[in-house]
Amino acid sequence: MKSELLGTDEILLPSGFRAAGIHAGIKKREARDMALLVSDTPAVVAGVFTTNQVNAAPVKWCRARLPSREARAVIVNSGNANACTGAAGLADARRMAQVTAESLEVSEETVFVCSTGHIGARLPMDIVEPGIRETVKRLSRDGGRAAAQAIMTTDIRVKHWTVKIKVDGKPVIVSGIAKGAGMIEPNMATMLAFLMTDAVVDADALQKALAEAVNQSFNRITVDGDQSTNDTVLLFANGQAGHTSALDAQHPAWADFVAALNEVSLQLALKIVEDGEGANKRVTILVDGADNDEEADKAARAIANSFLVKTSWAGVYPNWGRVMDAIGYSKARVDEDKVDIWYDAHQATRNGLATETPLATLKSVIEQQAFTIRVNLNLGAGRAVVYTCEITEEYVHINVT
Amino acid sequence: MKSELLGTDEILLPSGFRAAGIHAGIKKREARDMALLVSDTPAVVAGVFTTNQVNAAPVKWCRARLPSREARAVIVNSGNANACTGAAGLADARRMAQVTAESLEVSEETVFVCSTGHIGARLPMDIVEPGIRETVKRLSRDGGRAAAQAIMTTDIRVKHWTVKIKVDGKPVIVSGIAKGAGMIEPNMATMLAFLMTDAVVDADALQKALAEAVNQSFNRITVDGDQSTNDTVLLFANGQAGHTSALDAQHPAWADFVAALNEVSLQLALKIVEDGEGANKRVTILVDGADNDEEADKAARAIANSFLVKTSWAGVYPNWGRVMDAIGYSKARVDEDKVDIWYDAHQATRNGLATETPLATLKSVIEQQAFTIRVNLNLGAGRAVVYTCEITEEYVHINVT
Repeated sequence: MKSELLGTDEILLPSGFRAAGIHAGIKKREARDMALLVSDTPAVVAGVFTTNQVNAAPVKWCRARLPSREARAVIVNSGNANACTGAAGLADARRMAQVTAESLEVSEETVFVCSTGHIGARLPMDIVEPGIRETVKRLSRDGGRAAAQAIMTTDIRVKHWTVKIKVDGKPVIVSGIAKGAGMIEPNMATMLAFLMTDAVVDADALQKALAEAVNQSFNRITVDGDQSTNDTVLLFANGQAGHTSALDAQHPAWADFVAALNEVSLQLALKIVEDGEGANKRVTILVDGADNDEEADKAARAIANSFLVKTSWAGVYPNWGRVMDAIGYSKARVDEDKVDIWYDAHQATRNGLATETPLATLKSVIEQQAFTIRVNLNLGAGRAVVYTCEITEEYVHINVT
Repeated sequence: MKSELLGTDEILLPSGFRAAGIHAGIKKREARDMALLVSDTPAVVAGVFTTNQVNAAPVKWCRARLPSREARAVIVNSGNANACTGAAGLADARRMAQVTAESLEVSEETVFVCSTGHIGARLPMDIVEPGIRETVKRLSRDGGRAAAQAIMTTDIRVKHWTVKIKVDGKPVIVSGIAKGAGMIEPNMATMLAFLMTDAVVDADALQKALAEAVNQSFNRITVDGDQSTNDTVLLFANGQAGHTSALDAQHPAWADFVAALNEVSLQLALKIVEDGEGANKRVTILVDGADNDEEADKAARAIANSFLVKTSWAGVYPNWGRVMDAIGYSKARVDEDKVDIWYDAHQATRNGLATETPLATLKSVIEQQAFTIRVNLNLGAGRAVVYTCEITEEYVHINVT
């Protein structure tokens, strides 16, 4: 793949997309809280949503609009999740689509809706409706950064990523924005990501590619093990790059497109982990040697979701005993006399027993902003990776209100 | 049951039991770190252990000694878990039994061994061995409190409970000591409890009664969702109360004995939750209306183990949306439009939507040191209860090292 990483401060929207982000007043503090992404022409859209049985009104709205080849926009608010709001909440979500559609002069069926924030309260529609109209007025090719800011809740950093490829000799862009940062669990927990491309893509192929990209990125991160009611990843492909043949699995450029999509998804997912509430470290958990991939995944998630493991990272304390404990209570088969654990290149245990590696060496690994804990169960060929972060006192402080 | 609660500062050992607790030097700080409980005559013993696949040497030692009608003692150290220590650790555990047995002039097979503390380091046997001999010298009928102190790790409060009943007209005592307080998860996570009775009890009946008592007490508490490598509950019955017929399910006093055992187990379990690391509140999670008891249990544990729910309690923030979120991602079937949630007697949601109950009222519930969150899923007759505590910044502070 000939991908080109763009400057991190710039958000280059694919051809035919515009964006905006404003402060409408849903958040009490002076921060952007409404975002709009628009495709000037109908776009094929793919989506992946939370698996939580309790899911928000906008999630229900979006699910019912898929599949679609006519998507035009997604309107997003932060500060209120519009979850556990019943029929009234569904009406509010639909009203958001209607007002957006009216202002854009498109059909309401082509407008997607997302919300993130506090659960259980009605949306302040007296603020949301004029907010939508204002957002439409502010749409521009340079609005990507404002939109990325407007979807943030407890996020500290703006998250976006862009990759350029060529299809049939034409430049194609795949870009995306995302928000975390708490209530993040493997299966798509409080996170929103909006991906855009100007590629021409077959609708079925697009949905498959997105599902696979999400599985290898957003579904492999965990901050606190809590799954949200509102998780949504949407991918819009408007075909404005102008290459002649639609991309699908048979197309010679398909692998490049998939690689670009995977890269954008993974980079956004890693940015969410790096911006985990109160977190400063990105930790990669790599488990191999499990009976199979599924068991490796269970062991990796047990480590990544153990608060005792996560707090030990915060304390720069290489307590591999807590890692052993976590895999021991995971549902993966473990033989404690076979377990090897590495901190980056330094082996902490061999056959389940401490090595001679000095504590100071292991400490120096955990002191880094990014490191890898690798566990070999030495039972089979199963393998899994999960990305996570440490848990600090600040995490608790952020979440006590 | 005619039970009599004894003064909370007194630990009344059943007839024929002696105890001791000393500072041997395993802990760097000046705190007791070795405990010994002894029955002057052979006792029937029952045991329940961690389900963690990684389990400590003393757990392996104890498991291999059960069932036994000849138990004489349990020697315990805190400050070092003797876990992930391989064959050398097993030899150390056995050596602890040997030294204890020699000093008591009994067989090593009759001595049980428990350890709790840091995982992965060898026991300092040069400290442990003289420590054992010193502990034997200090044995007394008044040693219960010192023993209860000596098994503590991050515990702040000594945990013990005693119930008196009558069997065949003779006074019988059931008493116990326990330690928590982190790495506590439903299925017996880092906790030790030692129960004693002078009742005459059939061995099989004793094991069944203990398993059931543990299931309704120690297995229903959770602090942080982590399961330890060392959890052990042992129950010794030495028959010194002198009633004529052995207790079993056919005995007229069986129900009284079981009730006493259940009470001691539950009270100790609740004390562990109340002394959860950094915790100040005891929260009872009661789920009913699930499809079945197992599903109710899943929903209750999802709530009790959600860090977002637990931190909201720490912040005295009645965020029922986080409760909805947790049951939604639990493996229990949930229909969000049917969920009723109460904070003590105050209903927060009806059919999944906010009630008119003022936030201030819900807040006043969470301000209490003990309260109940009740969730009715309104689907079936399944029911479960779990006891837990809040998560504070102090919890993280305690666990960063």
